[in-house]
Amino acid sequence: MTQEFESALLEGAVTEISRLPGIGRKTALRLALHLLREDVATSVSLGEAIINMRKGIRYCSVCHNISETEVCPICGDPRRDASTICVVESVKDVLIIENTGSYRGLYHVLGGVISPIDGIGPDKLEIDSLIARAASGSIKEVILALSATMEGDTTDYYIYKRLEPHNVKVTQLARGVSVGNEIEYTDEITLGRSLMNRTLFSDSIMI
Amino acid sequence: MTQEFESALLEGAVTEISRLPGIGRKTALRLALHLLREDVATSVSLGEAIINMRKGIRYCSVCHNISETEVCPICGDPRRDASTICVVESVKDVLIIENTGSYRGLYHVLGGVISPIDGIGPDKLEIDSLIARAASGSIKEVILALSATMEGDTTDYYIYKRLEPHNVKVTQLARGVSVGNEIEYTDEITLGRSLMNRTLFSDSIMI
Repeated sequence: MTQEFESALLEGAVTEISRLPGIGRKTALRLALHLLREDVATSVSLGEAIINMRKGIRYCSVCHNISETEVCPICGDPRRDASTICVVESVKDVLIIENTGSYRGLYHVLGGVISPIDGIGPDKLEIDSLIARAASGSIKEVILALSATMEGDTTDYYIYKRLEPHNVKVTQLARGVSVGNEIEYTDEITLGRSLMNRTLFSDSIMI
Repeated sequence: MTQEFESALLEGAVTEISRLPGIGRKTALRLALHLLREDVATSVSLGEAIINMRKGIRYCSVCHNISETEVCPICGDPRRDASTICVVESVKDVLIIENTGSYRGLYHVLGGVISPIDGIGPDKLEIDSLIARAASGSIKEVILALSATMEGDTTDYYIYKRLEPHNVKVTQLARGVSVGNEIEYTDEITLGRSLMNRTLFSDSIMI
C-alpha cells in the first residue's frame, strides 16, 4: 500500500519524483521535505532547469546525440575528423569518450544494442541511418565502441555485415588488460585477447 | 573535477538535481538522460509539481506541521482531541504517527532536537511556542515522541522542566521490546526499561 499525504501538493510532488528510476516513495518524500525546508528559489530553479532542459534539448539529426540545435556541436565542428564515425550505444557513452580527450572524429548513437530477449531488434536502433551515413562516400572508418557483452558483440557483427558492401574500414575498441589492473586478477578471455592483439612496446606507451 | 557538458541546458539540470541530498552528479546525469528519453510532459509534470509544492505549502501557525492553509487540517479538525499535544522532531514523524492510526490528538513539530555539538540550542527549536500552547489552559497532556537518543532525552528533559510550572501531564513514548523482535537480540538497556515498565497482560494485547 502506498502512503497518502493530507496535502495534495506534497502527494503530487512525491508521486512525480518517485517516477524517476531508482527513486521510491520514501526517497521521494525525503527529497520533497528537504525542498520544503529550503528557499522557494531552490525549488523554482530545480523545476525550471528540468523543464527547460527537456524543452530545449532534442536529438541531432545526423548522429542522434543530444543537442540544442538541429545538428549537434560535434557534427557541426569543422575541426573534427568527419571521415571517422565512432558508434556508441548511448548519449552517456559520447560524454565518456569525449572526456578521454583521445577522439576527434564524429559519433553515431544507436540508442541501445540488439537484444532479442528484450525485444530489441536492429529496426529499433539507429542502424539504417548509420549505414546511410557510411554509404555517403565521405566515411573512411567506422569504430565500433559497444559493450564487450554478448549483445554488444552481436550488434558489432550485424553492423559489420551491413557495412561490408560499402568499402569502409570497420574497427573495434581494443580488448585487453585494464590500465592499473594486475595480471593475476584479469579474466582468462581478456588475457587471451590481449596476448593475441599484443602491441609493439614503445616509449609513447609509458605516459 | 566535475564533468562539464557541451549543452548548457543539460549542465544546468544536472547541477540543480545534484544539489539534492544524497544525489551526486553521476546519478543526476542518469536522471537527466532518463527524462530526455521520456515525453516532454513527464518533465513538465515533475518540474511543475516541485514548484507548486514549494510555493503552495507553508507551515501551520499552531503546530508547525506542513500545511496548505494558515492552520493545518489536523489542528483545524474539530473531531480531534485538542487537549493532547504530541511533540515530534519533524514533519515526517507526524506522517509516521498518523499512519499508525493510533493517535487522535494534535501535534507540535519542534524542527529538531537540542544538540550542542551541531550548534542547535533550545532557541533554534519551536519550544517557546510549545510552552505557550501548553500554558493556554486547554492542554491536559503533552506526549514526548522524540528519538530515544541522548539528544532526544536531553530535549525531553528540557521540555519537561519548562512545562513543570504549567500543571500539564507530561508523558513519553513507551520504551521496550519492538513488536516482532526476539528477546535474544534486544539490547540490555531496552530490556531493562521494558522490565521496569512491564504492563498488565490482557486479551487486548493479543491483536
